[in-house]
Amino acid sequence: MSISESARHGASGRERLVVIGADAAGMSAASQARRLKGPEELDIVAFERGHFTSYSACGIPYWVGGDVTERDELIARTPEEHRARGIDLRLRTEVTAIDLGRQGVHARDVDSGAESWTSYDKLVIATGARPIRPEMPGADAEGVHGVQTLDDGQELLDTLTRTRARGRHAVVVGAGYIGVEMAEALINRGYLVTVVNRGSEPMSTLDPDMGRLVHRAMEGLGITMVNDAEVTELLTHEDGRVRAVVTPDGEYPADVVVLGIGVRPETGLAKAAGLPLGAHGGLLTDLAMRVRGHENIWAGGDCVEVLDLVSGQERHIPLGTHANKHGQIIGTNAGGGYATFPGVVGTAVSKVCDLEIARTGLREKDARRAGLKFETVTIESTSRAGYYPGASPMTVKMLAERRTGRLLGVQIVGREGAGKRVDIAAVALTAGMTAEQMTTLDLGYAPPFSPVWDPVLVAARKAAAKVRNT
Amino acid sequence: MSISESARHGASGRERLVVIGADAAGMSAASQARRLKGPEELDIVAFERGHFTSYSACGIPYWVGGDVTERDELIARTPEEHRARGIDLRLRTEVTAIDLGRQGVHARDVDSGAESWTSYDKLVIATGARPIRPEMPGADAEGVHGVQTLDDGQELLDTLTRTRARGRHAVVVGAGYIGVEMAEALINRGYLVTVVNRGSEPMSTLDPDMGRLVHRAMEGLGITMVNDAEVTELLTHEDGRVRAVVTPDGEYPADVVVLGIGVRPETGLAKAAGLPLGAHGGLLTDLAMRVRGHENIWAGGDCVEVLDLVSGQERHIPLGTHANKHGQIIGTNAGGGYATFPGVVGTAVSKVCDLEIARTGLREKDARRAGLKFETVTIESTSRAGYYPGASPMTVKMLAERRTGRLLGVQIVGREGAGKRVDIAAVALTAGMTAEQMTTLDLGYAPPFSPVWDPVLVAARKAAAKVRNT
Repeated sequence: MSISESARHGASGRERLVVIGADAAGMSAASQARRLKGPEELDIVAFERGHFTSYSACGIPYWVGGDVTERDELIARTPEEHRARGIDLRLRTEVTAIDLGRQGVHARDVDSGAESWTSYDKLVIATGARPIRPEMPGADAEGVHGVQTLDDGQELLDTLTRTRARGRHAVVVGAGYIGVEMAEALINRGYLVTVVNRGSEPMSTLDPDMGRLVHRAMEGLGITMVNDAEVTELLTHEDGRVRAVVTPDGEYPADVVVLGIGVRPETGLAKAAGLPLGAHGGLLTDLAMRVRGHENIWAGGDCVEVLDLVSGQERHIPLGTHANKHGQIIGTNAGGGYATFPGVVGTAVSKVCDLEIARTGLREKDARRAGLKFETVTIESTSRAGYYPGASPMTVKMLAERRTGRLLGVQIVGREGAGKRVDIAAVALTAGMTAEQMTTLDLGYAPPFSPVWDPVLVAARKAAAKVRNT
Repeated sequence: MSISESARHGASGRERLVVIGADAAGMSAASQARRLKGPEELDIVAFERGHFTSYSACGIPYWVGGDVTERDELIARTPEEHRARGIDLRLRTEVTAIDLGRQGVHARDVDSGAESWTSYDKLVIATGARPIRPEMPGADAEGVHGVQTLDDGQELLDTLTRTRARGRHAVVVGAGYIGVEMAEALINRGYLVTVVNRGSEPMSTLDPDMGRLVHRAMEGLGITMVNDAEVTELLTHEDGRVRAVVTPDGEYPADVVVLGIGVRPETGLAKAAGLPLGAHGGLLTDLAMRVRGHENIWAGGDCVEVLDLVSGQERHIPLGTHANKHGQIIGTNAGGGYATFPGVVGTAVSKVCDLEIARTGLREKDARRAGLKFETVTIESTSRAGYYPGASPMTVKMLAERRTGRLLGVQIVGREGAGKRVDIAAVALTAGMTAEQMTTLDLGYAPPFSPVWDPVLVAARKAAAKVRNT
């Protein structure tokens, strides 16, 4: 197969686009390239080592928690759908090496072990990220799960089903987005949930003062929060099943353990090929998502670093929404068009039960690291006019640069209606607005939707005043 | 009283700020000026012909509908609270003339008829708007109500209580924000509601194609929509109570009629004094909300015209959120500081039962009137990831300028989570973004909050493509 392909490529004169990784970024790129160039012009070959394509990893916690009942609901486009559009999709086939000189990839069938060689004219690297697995005794015990892939989610659900009768203690290690979302999922499944967190407060993507609000709310939901705690060991039963999580200060019974301690860019292949990696281990690209210095290679999704438009620094932000945009842009460029990804402002939103958590821009420590002088304000307001039913409290923290007043970041913790308000600040950050300019933003107002001064405007007023007075 | 005041002003050397109209704009101005200057520096006298101060007129439909149980919940600050801050508030006292030459106002006590004269160093005109009352037979019948003031709301509630036993037919005349909100209120009170609307579709602040979605949804809620219908007469019972609404095409039984056919700036006093009015009858101000050509007179709220930042034209947009901002800015300037109101982009949001309706920027006819060439796109999406419970459909229409791609306007009709998404476009309009720039906005994404491409981004992608291809 590998030989015939290589020959076909040489003979047909058609260009070949090879995609490594068939999830959000890779298959968005393949689909968009196909939209621009038909099969008569462009061969598209996509390699995927797993079983699935184009699924919402972000949806896994809701599937595990039961809000989403069927795994397949998370699959945006099946292998069959991709193939019907003329994409040669090779599942369970892992690319083992990229040969930049000969412009091709070595691959191996995961099940049969058969090896192949496929040349490319254009290459898309969308290898994603891999979860950080702690190296400690018991980390591989039965009942210890990551939740990065659909396969992971299925294994966790199988464990929950199998062990339900034995006990209902769950420990989540890590209190970032995945951690808090999995805490919700396990509560919804009827577990007693403990979250063990290395940081001083949950949600280290927020400043600690805002994280403290999340901490309190999670305790209010019946979740046991253990902060400042490094897991040193997982204890097991004699049959190999996990039974407890150990930290220097205590031992927490666990019938199931979910690891949500973050991910790293999956860039082993890229590194071996000598492609440029950044400080966070992600591929470095230009505005068109081309790997720097390589005219015919693009990379996107969780395996790249992105430019933070606020700090001017590169960051690694594994998020489906970026991966989809990257894929769209890569596919446009690989398909002969032109598109760019200017960067991110670091927006993220999450929830744990009815608590909504959002952030965009820089935290205090990011701003300090970027060498910026800034003011911070924190205000309390409500999601709707105070007198309107369902008005719920919301805390908004805003950072603005000293003297210029430029908006640097916003964090919001509240209930219904809190989370997506961060979009106001995300657009303002992108536009480089000052807090002062934000005070007169013409935002949607009616009593069921907002107080007459939207909470974000209240924060902007206070921030603008603080900047003026210092 | 008038003589002693005038003398005191001359003698004390303190400045006096006179405010005409003690609702959102007027009392925000008074409060902010007081924050900047204490009673030893600045006298503040505020005249109000009604009984109330600083209330949320926008909340009246929810009070009438029963979502808000007590009238006083709508009052943000009582007369006593204002007086406690050293504001000389004169309720039930109507200013009858402004004397620019002598720098003073004539006023009359509404109850006693006593007249007074009060000089000013600085004047704030915040006289609001008056509802348009149709001139037709029966317009003053018992059971016919406007809903502009708290007094109006109370009278309507009294009518509902009194006539409940007689019949449950309600007709709302007008299908703008007030009209649809009152339709909801009357449904909540158990009425059979007919909305009689002059336009071809409800919500003329939307383009008709989007208005049609509102039309269908209102019918789905059991509201009878009568479009293209001008009310010619109100029929009454022999005892003077209203009994039906007549249009050229039909007659609609009515035990109560609510008029919601818009308002005009209340600028009789200003006009008589020779102050500059615009084409919509509102006062014209500069960026600092100073009445043009008058150094020591400010105006704000429903009695002024505002600059539309998208079209560059003046508009009359009576909205509490603008009035509050105006007041804040006027108070800052009158108190010796400096602040400006740059203008509006025309954002508004409303709901009728669970239908959310939002708009910002220009409609097609506004864009044509402004001489702009534009493209329009309309997309369907959902409020959350499609697989997440509660994901509800949403229609987003976007207008972008031809060639430049500059965003001109957005309209959204949907269910929960649709309305406030308009804020994304409101900020983008303020920043002068193009549809293309919007496609890479870093908006909050997680399955409970948004599809991986936010509906506004989906519209932006389609608009950007359409602009590129024409």
